[in-house]
Amino acid sequence: MKIDINSDMGEAFGPYRMGDDDTLLTLVSSANIACGFHAGDPDVMAHTVATAIKNGVDIGAHPGFDDKRHFGRRRLPTDAKSLKSETLYQLGALDAIAREQGARVSHLSFHGALGNILYKDRELADVLVGAVAAFNRDIIFPVTPNTATEAAAIKHGLRTVRKFFADRAYDNNGLLVPRGTPGSIIHDHDVAAKRVLQLLDSGTVTTIDGETLRMQAQVVMVHSETPGAVELARAIRNALETNGGEIVPMSKLV
Amino acid sequence: MKIDINSDMGEAFGPYRMGDDDTLLTLVSSANIACGFHAGDPDVMAHTVATAIKNGVDIGAHPGFDDKRHFGRRRLPTDAKSLKSETLYQLGALDAIAREQGARVSHLSFHGALGNILYKDRELADVLVGAVAAFNRDIIFPVTPNTATEAAAIKHGLRTVRKFFADRAYDNNGLLVPRGTPGSIIHDHDVAAKRVLQLLDSGTVTTIDGETLRMQAQVVMVHSETPGAVELARAIRNALETNGGEIVPMSKLV
Amino acid sequence: MKIDINSDMGEAFGPYRMGDDDTLLTLVSSANIACGFHAGDPDVMAHTVATAIKNGVDIGAHPGFDDKRHFGRRRLPTDAKSLKSETLYQLGALDAIAREQGARVSHLSFHGALGNILYKDRELADVLVGAVAAFNRDIIFPVTPNTATEAAAIKHGLRTVRKFFADRAYDNNGLLVPRGTPGSIIHDHDVAAKRVLQLLDSGTVTTIDGETLRMQAQVVMVHSETPGAVELARAIRNALETNGGEIVPMSKLV
Amino acid sequence: MKIDINSDMGEAFGPYRMGDDDTLLTLVSSANIACGFHAGDPDVMAHTVATAIKNGVDIGAHPGFDDKRHFGRRRLPTDAKSLKSETLYQLGALDAIAREQGARVSHLSFHGALGNILYKDRELADVLVGAVAAFNRDIIFPVTPNTATEAAAIKHGLRTVRKFFADRAYDNNGLLVPRGTPGSIIHDHDVAAKRVLQLLDSGTVTTIDGETLRMQAQVVMVHSETPGAVELARAIRNALETNGGEIVPMSKLV
Repeated sequence: MKIDINSDMGEAFGPYRMGDDDTLLTLVSSANIACGFHAGDPDVMAHTVATAIKNGVDIGAHPGFDDKRHFGRRRLPTDAKSLKSETLYQLGALDAIAREQGARVSHLSFHGALGNILYKDRELADVLVGAVAAFNRDIIFPVTPNTATEAAAIKHGLRTVRKFFADRAYDNNGLLVPRGTPGSIIHDHDVAAKRVLQLLDSGTVTTIDGETLRMQAQVVMVHSETPGAVELARAIRNALETNGGEIVPMSKLV
Repeated sequence: MKIDINSDMGEAFGPYRMGDDDTLLTLVSSANIACGFHAGDPDVMAHTVATAIKNGVDIGAHPGFDDKRHFGRRRLPTDAKSLKSETLYQLGALDAIAREQGARVSHLSFHGALGNILYKDRELADVLVGAVAAFNRDIIFPVTPNTATEAAAIKHGLRTVRKFFADRAYDNNGLLVPRGTPGSIIHDHDVAAKRVLQLLDSGTVTTIDGETLRMQAQVVMVHSETPGAVELARAIRNALETNGGEIVPMSKLV
Repeated sequence: MKIDINSDMGEAFGPYRMGDDDTLLTLVSSANIACGFHAGDPDVMAHTVATAIKNGVDIGAHPGFDDKRHFGRRRLPTDAKSLKSETLYQLGALDAIAREQGARVSHLSFHGALGNILYKDRELADVLVGAVAAFNRDIIFPVTPNTATEAAAIKHGLRTVRKFFADRAYDNNGLLVPRGTPGSIIHDHDVAAKRVLQLLDSGTVTTIDGETLRMQAQVVMVHSETPGAVELARAIRNALETNGGEIVPMSKLV
Repeated sequence: MKIDINSDMGEAFGPYRMGDDDTLLTLVSSANIACGFHAGDPDVMAHTVATAIKNGVDIGAHPGFDDKRHFGRRRLPTDAKSLKSETLYQLGALDAIAREQGARVSHLSFHGALGNILYKDRELADVLVGAVAAFNRDIIFPVTPNTATEAAAIKHGLRTVRKFFADRAYDNNGLLVPRGTPGSIIHDHDVAAKRVLQLLDSGTVTTIDGETLRMQAQVVMVHSETPGAVELARAIRNALETNGGEIVPMSKLV
């Protein structure tokens, strides 16, 4: 009956805002914080960490490609060795900021194009996840099921928790229906919240074709930069709280 | 009779070289490695760390202003809170890269304009050194005597070792004669090496006015970007080895 | 009876928004477009130029310090020679983007900390304005009266037009009352619009002390990043249009 | 009997050197100057332009991907519209710096990965070269024969001159033998210089297989970042001068 509400966060940069992190941090239980490469900067990181701590929210690293102008959404042709160093760089930077405030990075989730590559690229996933494991074996990986990232985390002895997208449709294979497909996005927050309750109650999701599919997941994702992220998070939180769900940070799940 | 030879390092960037680090790392016993702000990048950092480990050289962080085009030499008007986050960011980034390779950041030396500000700015030194102490109480500070950095390190319970510049003249107060002053730079490597031996043997330095001054220092600095750095390091190393000095990494001194 | 409504613009960056430029460009008659240093990027510049052209809005360059994370608001210690090259770089970049679309940069306004320095620094103003004149003698300078920028523009034979801040209080010397002083900001858009009409009708402004002061200005500034910029611009535009004022681009004024 | 010696240049950045431009500019007759994206910065650009003017060397723009850490060598997935704006941005920036010194950008050569893409991508070449033509119809394109860039330049009515690589082997189709193939690089500067004389005298090149192939080219390329660039340029210049060749800037060729 325990579930974690998770969101990407800390994606502001200098004078530029991205999402309403301060409010969202009162609603979620774990945060994936950008580390200054695809978004964020040391000031934003320190502020986001402080706000997370104040709200009892788990701190996760959210490394991505070094490409702020394109928000880490371009697949940059970068070799595995460089990406390993860039991942460690970002992870360590956030961890130091967290440690100074008495906290630690407890989980990690790759961002954008890098995350997408790691759905399938087993060799790269092995290198990057292995580097994270070498840094700290206690790091948890929230994962999309059956991805290269999940396989690598298991191989390297790291704990994983599976993600569920409340506002996205799934197909009969349990895969996300690609954005752009009609019906792929669930715009009604109450419907999305009910899907979370269904997941919690029966361990199932209703697919886009109406079938009932078994799904095991304990992390509900909310995208902070999506308009309505705060409202979606609030709808999910309210639904959980009024139906006996216990919202706990990721580190309390595993 | 123990002394550490120390140099700033890892100040290449992408395709751009800065000094002959690979050779210098066979001559020094501790390295201050740039962390990607005033110089360096994740690839350069990972390579420099690996080469340091191979040569038994201590790994130190060398944080500076975020200003690669000006090599961290401009005093950027930045508030203490931002500089704290930037220092932690750089320190943590390097530490993660070192940890993945089985090492740790064992000391820290501020770079360029930031280092110069911290000679005198006690308030800022307190904030930045305090943040380093909160990150890891085992970090050693190689310091110029009687600076705000030294005072802050002592206040926060961190170990310090004092630096000696082999190729720089000192005045009768034990302060460096400013660059540009005639005689401020000692160009003859053998003379510089002899000054190191004098320091080691008698704990003194001969000032620019010819006086003999007591000086306590165990870290001999060599600037990697100076032409002739490799030759200077080699001259000092040879002089020490043929005169019974023991060259040891900074962490073995304290 | 002719007046130009002017605003800083094009200060978005990659995925980050800053103000509602597309709407504001339907209300103003000239735009100062960021050139990728303190804000903006080539995509934002090209889009802003295209939208300005579509709306018959004059295109101006808005160069600033190369410091996106601090939005050009820090006074960076940079020598005049570098700032000259940086100004030309930004101006030329925007001009090329404008030329490809059949337009030209017709005016220039320095941004933020750089603009503030140029209120008083006559030597630097001479260098930077002189460089602009060498690039193109037809560039117009919208200026705050009695600043070093104005003096330099006159010296180099460039045309100037004086700026009026509709939502800012003036003192009895015709200087802006500093932000932070009670009464320095005029929050009521209708009051601000009436001040523009007064300027147009009688060539005067009522100071914060209630005196009536002569003021000659033909460019009304609206800050795009201020909340309410669109509403302020609309209030001014409406007031002008219903009272016989003619809103014309800066290049038609001089 | 006229020939232009051309080199990429201005690829230093802040404190970092790349090649000996000051010497090379006394040997070549046209320079492709980096514009701050893959390399270079406003200071380097202004200095390189000034040195080129002093030596009577033609000034060309050398735009590339915005990727200094990888020196513009990675193929970044960027759409044509963005690359058009980035090309104009770089070209205009350099042109403004040149104009302030009384010169103009007279030619353009794409750098690195962007140049390589434009060998074959006709659609992109049409967009980028078309944008250059819209900026200034007098810009000359030094081109590799039978590339998409050449076709686009001809289509848009721009003048082209063909490039010859003195230190690279050609195959029987007149294409460069790829680097890495044995014999692809001609390391002996005298042999390279003789190949230039052969081109000038008989309009032919001897291929890697020993055949004599007709080749029409008037621009001899020297890569500034290659070790030995200065010596290669000097060998070619000397060979030309002692054999009646006339070295002229590209703009005097067409």
